[in-house]
Amino acid sequence: MAHLTEIAIESRQRIELVKLNEQVARAIAQSGVKDGVCHIFVPHTTAGVIINEGADPDVAKDILARLGHLVPHQGGYSHASGNADSHIKAALVGSSATVFIKGGAPLLGTWQSIFFCEFDGPRRRKAWLRIADT
Amino acid sequence: MAHLTEIAIESRQRIELVKLNEQVARAIAQSGVKDGVCHIFVPHTTAGVIINEGADPDVAKDILARLGHLVPHQGGYSHASGNADSHIKAALVGSSATVFIKGGAPLLGTWQSIFFCEFDGPRRRKAWLRIADT
Amino acid sequence: MAHLTEIAIESRQRIELVKLNEQVARAIAQSGVKDGVCHIFVPHTTAGVIINEGADPDVAKDILARLGHLVPHQGGYSHASGNADSHIKAALVGSSATVFIKGGAPLLGTWQSIFFCEFDGPRRRKAWLRIADT
Repeated sequence: MAHLTEIAIESRQRIELVKLNEQVARAIAQSGVKDGVCHIFVPHTTAGVIINEGADPDVAKDILARLGHLVPHQGGYSHASGNADSHIKAALVGSSATVFIKGGAPLLGTWQSIFFCEFDGPRRRKAWLRIADT
Repeated sequence: MAHLTEIAIESRQRIELVKLNEQVARAIAQSGVKDGVCHIFVPHTTAGVIINEGADPDVAKDILARLGHLVPHQGGYSHASGNADSHIKAALVGSSATVFIKGGAPLLGTWQSIFFCEFDGPRRRKAWLRIADT
Repeated sequence: MAHLTEIAIESRQRIELVKLNEQVARAIAQSGVKDGVCHIFVPHTTAGVIINEGADPDVAKDILARLGHLVPHQGGYSHASGNADSHIKAALVGSSATVFIKGGAPLLGTWQSIFFCEFDGPRRRKAWLRIADT
């Protein structure tokens, strides 16, 4: 049994980590899957998904600041849309994440949160979830 | 029902993003899987796979240029083969990607393409696909 | 049929790549799954997982050295725990990896090894494996 579902995300800044834990947990609960796997896929090319610490918001801040240092907004890029940095950051963090499901809930480490990585907001975005019990 | 298949890739430059959309779509069609998930795995250590914009080729160019800036070819590395940069880039982008399948086709965002990341070509390469409907 | 299992990892340095091949192979053998997929998930926020060359230990050394150059330990970070660099590196390499299973064993390329990426050790760590034949 597998469920494909979409969640809506609204980012508020150009560069932002948006916590998805509640939306992912809700989708898993609604699927009825007790034990399985959830793949999270971001269908955008200037956004991605990571799993990292959600307790101290300074961690998200540090991640974004360092990415901005490694891939500056203005970097003499070829892509004419002015968001080459956003594409490069998305390539670095990746378009998907995998989370196991146990007891009808996402199985995460104590400090882990799932973050949608907005690199070219603010925008209305989405993520696709595939929740399967096999 | 799961299918394990291999696709052949031929890169033409040392550093290149090779679009895999058609080969992945063909493998999914041939598998007969209508709704499911496709994992793409690169069995090389100096190559990887990303999903990013395929419409404007300048995006691929910018991604490769920035990676080359972050991980230069000559960087005082220990690995004697002269391709330490290729291994490091592969570690950064990752060895696998996940794509959902809907209606017998890969389910991608409007601007998304699947790219084999060649970091030490030109070479004959391969990627493995696992296509499952569960 | 899917199996969720945990493997124990003990790192010995602050920054270290720990090879997981044997533990992953053993878990797959014990599961009885002959053909399938194994997802490896790291439930920590200052560690990750990559697949790269395991033959020459200099490759692991180069990967860690370059990551340390890109994300220095002391970088004027906000996070007060003194390990912001560890979180950022974990975000870059990612929390999970996917390996196919064939003939009851992990299907890897000739030079590939699975590495637990310790970025804030030495510590007792763990990884979760989900091994499924569908």
